[in-house]
Amino acid sequence: MMAENVLTKLLKIEYPIIQAPMAGGITTSKLVAAVSNSGGLGMIGAGYMTPMQIREQIREVKQLTSNPFGINLFVPNEFHVTENEITSAQKKLNQIRKHLNLEPKENMDIPTVTDVFNNFTEQIQVVIEEKIPICSFTFGIPSKQVIAELKQYNIILMGTATTVREAVENEKAGIDLVIAQGSEAGGHRGSFSNGDQESLIGLMSLIPQIVDTVSIPVIAAGGIMDGRGLQASICLGAKGVQMGTAFLTCVESGAHPVYKESILNANESDTVLTRSFSGKWARGIKNEFISEMNDFEPSLPEYPIQNTLTQDIRKTSSSQNNPAFMSLWSGQSPRLAKYQTVESLIKAVISEVK
Amino acid sequence: MMAENVLTKLLKIEYPIIQAPMAGGITTSKLVAAVSNSGGLGMIGAGYMTPMQIREQIREVKQLTSNPFGINLFVPNEFHVTENEITSAQKKLNQIRKHLNLEPKENMDIPTVTDVFNNFTEQIQVVIEEKIPICSFTFGIPSKQVIAELKQYNIILMGTATTVREAVENEKAGIDLVIAQGSEAGGHRGSFSNGDQESLIGLMSLIPQIVDTVSIPVIAAGGIMDGRGLQASICLGAKGVQMGTAFLTCVESGAHPVYKESILNANESDTVLTRSFSGKWARGIKNEFISEMNDFEPSLPEYPIQNTLTQDIRKTSSSQNNPAFMSLWSGQSPRLAKYQTVESLIKAVISEVK
Repeated sequence: MMAENVLTKLLKIEYPIIQAPMAGGITTSKLVAAVSNSGGLGMIGAGYMTPMQIREQIREVKQLTSNPFGINLFVPNEFHVTENEITSAQKKLNQIRKHLNLEPKENMDIPTVTDVFNNFTEQIQVVIEEKIPICSFTFGIPSKQVIAELKQYNIILMGTATTVREAVENEKAGIDLVIAQGSEAGGHRGSFSNGDQESLIGLMSLIPQIVDTVSIPVIAAGGIMDGRGLQASICLGAKGVQMGTAFLTCVESGAHPVYKESILNANESDTVLTRSFSGKWARGIKNEFISEMNDFEPSLPEYPIQNTLTQDIRKTSSSQNNPAFMSLWSGQSPRLAKYQTVESLIKAVISEVK
Repeated sequence: MMAENVLTKLLKIEYPIIQAPMAGGITTSKLVAAVSNSGGLGMIGAGYMTPMQIREQIREVKQLTSNPFGINLFVPNEFHVTENEITSAQKKLNQIRKHLNLEPKENMDIPTVTDVFNNFTEQIQVVIEEKIPICSFTFGIPSKQVIAELKQYNIILMGTATTVREAVENEKAGIDLVIAQGSEAGGHRGSFSNGDQESLIGLMSLIPQIVDTVSIPVIAAGGIMDGRGLQASICLGAKGVQMGTAFLTCVESGAHPVYKESILNANESDTVLTRSFSGKWARGIKNEFISEMNDFEPSLPEYPIQNTLTQDIRKTSSSQNNPAFMSLWSGQSPRLAKYQTVESLIKAVISEVK
């Protein structure tokens, strides 16, 4: 079963295992390179990075591996925010800042729609200039123009879909591979065409229904931690898997030690969906921040505004080794997480496949 | 892979396929017998039945098959309801009754806790008297006394779990097999120990985490429609599957033709979780009833009160061939549903397994 397939051939990797591009400092160059050196596909989670940071990390990874690796970018969307939303969110966040001995904040530099779109354009230029062979996208599909430009440089494009409709949209746009993100997945929901509840579909349902509808190869993502998950995904029609939480707790990951600990001590019913950290729905381990913000969720500003507003809180909580106010993204299988090297993880996954 | 296993041996069936015990008239004797005659395990969904109705159906099924079949009962729970809750629910329901040309209702015979517990005790007696070999439970675990009595008659007991914790509780209570109900599943959530969001775990995560924790055989349920789902479940460590929606649209099922049509025309993002029909959370295809009741959900009476209050509406909607106010329970894989005989379905599932 672990013979070469359309996915491993296309991506020029040994095993059909992609490391999920977790943004926010988790996908260190060591992690990305270790995955690619172990036969999988390492991915830089570059969603929040400046073009310069992206260039630096690409060059660093290239020093550590000569195998292919990829990068993930967030497709920008229009957003709207009112002064009122920000004021009322800050009021609540200031209560939380007190717990962390942070000064209250009123005004803050918040990004404009133009900033966000310009940053994406520059990110794309770096991807092209640095000759990255594989680029994946979350939160939408890039414009025709961007896709055409990337294809001109023979960059393989991967999109994210949480529904059949989103998979079809990716295929129609000329995306080469589609990642089917099940409701089990940790971190941000990639949905962009369907409503929130509508796009929470378990992989047992999502994979076969996408596979039956599109012709491009499908990659399963969400709750997959071992050989059982890889084999099951292939039975359902996927050509490979994208694993996040399993790599997050690895030695090489840049996740904070208390974050890794939180996952290693969690069980399957400890994760919840929240938009309190960033303004977009994401799955993480329930903590004090999520509980305290719960009643305010419906009125919080959109992504990326809420993400900007909570940044100092997340950073300070992290520097105080306090998981209570950090975003502890995790999929629904934390009981299967282990603290191990990337090489051990990939070897174990492959050896478990019958 | 379709060789005899611990599940098929224990249940004395040919294939590790259990037909989900869908209550409310779907599991006709023809359906149950056809499943057992085709090598699977037919199950009577007896949750809402009187002891007399159960006895009649058991005898009818016995006329149609000499193979083993089983029955499912709802484990009763304490419930509390206030006059106010009923009045305000009726006020809203009376608006819906207007659409159906039904008279408004104020007072209604509603079951007491004692009624519900007494009915369960009598249901258990019928199961014993009629020598049913297999009995499954939803919404909880029966008392020690009931379990001991059923075991005395060598009845094989199956429990439902939506989390690892619930699976462990089933095992500790002496239940023989546990059905792992993933978030993909249609109909009522079987959760009884964990909160609502906490117990919505996709099968890709739920099966391996339960399998790693309990020693009793695990059966996967939720979104499984074909050989791919069966094979994937077995890769994840389950010993077999329980399929609901796939049997619901079969020729032999008692589901209303417009209900079958609704599933056959639905896609993966058309189902939602609602407690508007019964007071318990359940997954069904979104319709006018669910939309109209949406804002009232938090204040609706508990199960089984809300179920009693909405009964006339569901029945009348059904008799008017109008799916707008019926409970259209469905899992998350309606694109994979077909109108076919039970025999064709089971043959197809088995032939798809590599």
